[in-house]
Amino acid sequence: MKAFILDVDGVMTTGQFLYDSNGKAFKIFGPDDSDGLKILSEHINIHFVSADKRGFEISKKRIVDDLGYDLDLVSSAERVDWIKQRYDSSDVIYMGDGFFDHEIMKQVGYSIAPANADINAKKHSKYTTERSGGDRAVAEACVHILERFFKNL
Amino acid sequence: MKAFILDVDGVMTTGQFLYDSNGKAFKIFGPDDSDGLKILSEHINIHFVSADKRGFEISKKRIVDDLGYDLDLVSSAERVDWIKQRYDSSDVIYMGDGFFDHEIMKQVGYSIAPANADINAKKHSKYTTERSGGDRAVAEACVHILERFFKNL
Amino acid sequence: MKAFILDVDGVMTTGQFLYDSNGKAFKIFGPDDSDGLKILSEHINIHFVSADKRGFEISKKRIVDDLGYDLDLVSSAERVDWIKQRYDSSDVIYMGDGFFDHEIMKQVGYSIAPANADINAKKHSKYTTERSGGDRAVAEACVHILERFFKNL
Amino acid sequence: MKAFILDVDGVMTTGQFLYDSNGKAFKIFGPDDSDGLKILSEHINIHFVSADKRGFEISKKRIVDDLGYDLDLVSSAERVDWIKQRYDSSDVIYMGDGFFDHEIMKQVGYSIAPANADINAKKHSKYTTERSGGDRAVAEACVHILERFFKNL
Repeated sequence: MKAFILDVDGVMTTGQFLYDSNGKAFKIFGPDDSDGLKILSEHINIHFVSADKRGFEISKKRIVDDLGYDLDLVSSAERVDWIKQRYDSSDVIYMGDGFFDHEIMKQVGYSIAPANADINAKKHSKYTTERSGGDRAVAEACVHILERFFKNL
Repeated sequence: MKAFILDVDGVMTTGQFLYDSNGKAFKIFGPDDSDGLKILSEHINIHFVSADKRGFEISKKRIVDDLGYDLDLVSSAERVDWIKQRYDSSDVIYMGDGFFDHEIMKQVGYSIAPANADINAKKHSKYTTERSGGDRAVAEACVHILERFFKNL
Repeated sequence: MKAFILDVDGVMTTGQFLYDSNGKAFKIFGPDDSDGLKILSEHINIHFVSADKRGFEISKKRIVDDLGYDLDLVSSAERVDWIKQRYDSSDVIYMGDGFFDHEIMKQVGYSIAPANADINAKKHSKYTTERSGGDRAVAEACVHILERFFKNL
Repeated sequence: MKAFILDVDGVMTTGQFLYDSNGKAFKIFGPDDSDGLKILSEHINIHFVSADKRGFEISKKRIVDDLGYDLDLVSSAERVDWIKQRYDSSDVIYMGDGFFDHEIMKQVGYSIAPANADINAKKHSKYTTERSGGDRAVAEACVHILERFFKNL
């Protein structure tokens, strides 16, 4: 496996966002995910994607500025092509929680859904974490990937 | 079915709201509902109602400005009349979670409650989603409506 | 029964509060409680107490300014005396969720704890709601009180 | 037992933090923990540690300014040494929820994890609370410590 591609909302966050009368204001991130990613990043390329235009600056602050990973704005419909332009898709692990993510999961080497994911994302993922997004789902996914794909290193 | 009428708070949101010393400041919306509504909107008219005067600007920002649907301020007591003035009520699907929503559910063609709804709303709804408001309840309702009423289209 | 005395935090709210570097900023209130209280207030005096000095202005905004009920700052230790100065304590229904609330519950006519309450509050309350604070616990308590004490009115 | 050392995030808070486009803005604290700590503090030294640099001012406001306890910025990797420089580690009770906390738990006299903790923290703790961080886990831990170590006082 060469790359771990992760959605942001519902995976790194609870999926929820706080609105005031000016629009989307806050997203809710959680513990341990940054620690899990740091360890896994020694073995595999980590890259985030998000379809959330309105909340992109919030995601960018956390993922790019504070954690130091790449993040691209890529709609669900464009994601399979985006992946295939960059990787042999059989080398890609994809983690997502959303309405259209099962379509992407069918086209990659391995896939993970958090416990709080959409029902089809959970059905089509190879592995579903016990924890939810914003509650250690990514940390759990990182440990799972290390054990499944890199434990003999 | 001609119209899908949805309450906002507790259906599109968790039902909770954050207060500071100046009043109601934030509501908590969730993932996938906008995707579900977009697909369903090709088949049926979508219209939101809210009884929340103090938080109306927050709801309006999300529902009207960002998602592009109609939203009217209509109290629970006025809702049945409001529906009957606009539609043959047997053509209406109503989704609500609140204390008085079971009265409205009795007067429409089909009704849906989210998992977190008031006990009477769940008893009197024709369908209760497995997910809660602000956690994909509306996305699940949209898929359910498509499968039940529009699958032969 | 003459009075329904309610704690605010953990009863009308989830019990949680959001902090930033300036201190307590937000509390999380929920749906239907204002509707339940409005109906019950036709039968019994409703009065709120809170021990939260730092968050008092937030509670006051919701309880006093927006819902129109009385709210007093009363520590847990002072609450039994506070009640006895105002009412025959056997005429009081008390609803609380906290660490010291079981002591108050022993001294009043009837007591209610929300599902999320401290273990001793739940043990010593006469009734525990199925819903948690900030998730319709007070609405459920109001319906319970109406059915138990006022249904023949 | 001479000292109760507690992590802040995920123990005193839900572990979650709200981000806006300027970064980490809010943490979510909960009820009763300050009451439990106050009673326990008559029997044992209470000291908080946090590895969260970006959110340190938020933690400091709650723990130091508002509750009056000591708080030090100590990374997970430095924590065992930090403890051993201050205490005989067999006299220390440690409460933590995170990815690396099981390593610290192995080196102290007694250890507690909240219900929402990392799977390894729960495996290696001597006691796991029924409640989660930000939902009375610390209050429950304080009662447990009083009963287990100080009940004959």
